[in-house]
Amino acid sequence: MDTTPPHEGLPDNAKLVFKGVIFEVWQWEQEMYDGSTKTFEKTWRPPTIEVIASIGDRILIGHQEQPTHGTFISLFGGRPENDDIEAEARRELLEETGYVSDDWQLLLKKAKRGHTIHQTYVFIARDCRKEREQSLDAGEKISVEAVSFKAFLDLSEDPKAWICNDLIEYLREVRKDENKKREFRRLLFP
Amino acid sequence: MDTTPPHEGLPDNAKLVFKGVIFEVWQWEQEMYDGSTKTFEKTWRPPTIEVIASIGDRILIGHQEQPTHGTFISLFGGRPENDDIEAEARRELLEETGYVSDDWQLLLKKAKRGHTIHQTYVFIARDCRKEREQSLDAGEKISVEAVSFKAFLDLSEDPKAWICNDLIEYLREVRKDENKKREFRRLLFP
Repeated sequence: MDTTPPHEGLPDNAKLVFKGVIFEVWQWEQEMYDGSTKTFEKTWRPPTIEVIASIGDRILIGHQEQPTHGTFISLFGGRPENDDIEAEARRELLEETGYVSDDWQLLLKKAKRGHTIHQTYVFIARDCRKEREQSLDAGEKISVEAVSFKAFLDLSEDPKAWICNDLIEYLREVRKDENKKREFRRLLFP
Repeated sequence: MDTTPPHEGLPDNAKLVFKGVIFEVWQWEQEMYDGSTKTFEKTWRPPTIEVIASIGDRILIGHQEQPTHGTFISLFGGRPENDDIEAEARRELLEETGYVSDDWQLLLKKAKRGHTIHQTYVFIARDCRKEREQSLDAGEKISVEAVSFKAFLDLSEDPKAWICNDLIEYLREVRKDENKKREFRRLLFP
C-alpha cells in the first residue's frame, strides 16, 4: 500500500490507488449519515503555470501546435517539475520563448477542489528580454508574437485561445471596466 | 489488458489503465514531431445531469448537505447509471425531490475534452407535481425550496451554489439581457 501523504483538499485517510503519467487517483472510506461507509474518490493533477510576459507596451503570446490538440493560441508555462513554482515559471518561459525577466509577480493562485484537485498559478513577467533561442520539447511547436494590450484582453473571447478559466474570467472582468483596465495595464507596464 | 473501447474524445489506441469508483484513467502512445513517442493520459468521468424543475412560476432548488462538502445549494441530478440520460434525469428528480414532470426538454449538452473528458446535460422539467416523498441516499440530505425566477438567476453569482459551470455561464448571459430573460422565462413557464 502506498503511503504518500494526501494532498491538500483530501482527507487524512485518503490513499493513493493509482499514479499515472499526469493524474493520481485517491480513494477513502467516507462515513455516511446512517453510519454506513462508502468509497469516495478524487483525482489530483499537477499545478498549471501560465506566464503573462510583457515587453515594451506589448505582451507575448504563443501560436502553438501540439499532437492531438491541433493549433491554438496560448501563454507560456506548463506543469512544474518541482515545488519551486516561480523558478519553474522562469524555466518554462525561457524554454518556450527564449525570454527572461527580472521582475516577476504572482497575479492569480486558484485551487480547484471538486472531483479533481488542481491548482493554477498565473504570473506576470515584466519587461522581458531575449536571452537565447527557444528549446522546445518534441511535442511542442510554438511561434511567439508580441500583441497589444487590447488584443491580449480580447483573447478572453477567442475560442482559439487555450488559457486557464481563472485567467479568462479575470480578463473578462478587466475588459469591461475602465478602472480595472488602468490597474492591469500598470501591473504589466509599470 | 482491458479491451473496453475508448470514449469519444480519445484516440483509437487509448487503453483503459485504471478504473476507479468514479474516474477512469486512459493512456496511449502519442507520436511526437520528431518521430519519438510519449505516453499521453486523460481521465474520463461519467456525465453530470442537472435538472431545472419548474412549478407554477417558481423553480425548485435544493439545500443540500453531503459528507465532505458541508452545506450548499444545488439543482437535482447526479451521475447516470445507464445510457438513457433523460430517464436517469427523471429518476434523480423523483428520488431527490419526490416531484415528476411530463414535459422535459434538454437545455444544454456540453462536452469537456481537456485533461478530463466529461459531459454535462442540463434538463428543464416543466410544470412539476409532487408524486411521493424523497428517497435519498445515505450520503444525501436535501431540503427542497421553490424560488422565484429572479432568485434562480441570482444563483449564478452565489458562492454557496454548486451548479455546473456551463449552466452558470448560461444564467449569467440570461441575467444581463432582457430578451434572453424573456426567452428563458418562456422556456420554464410556457
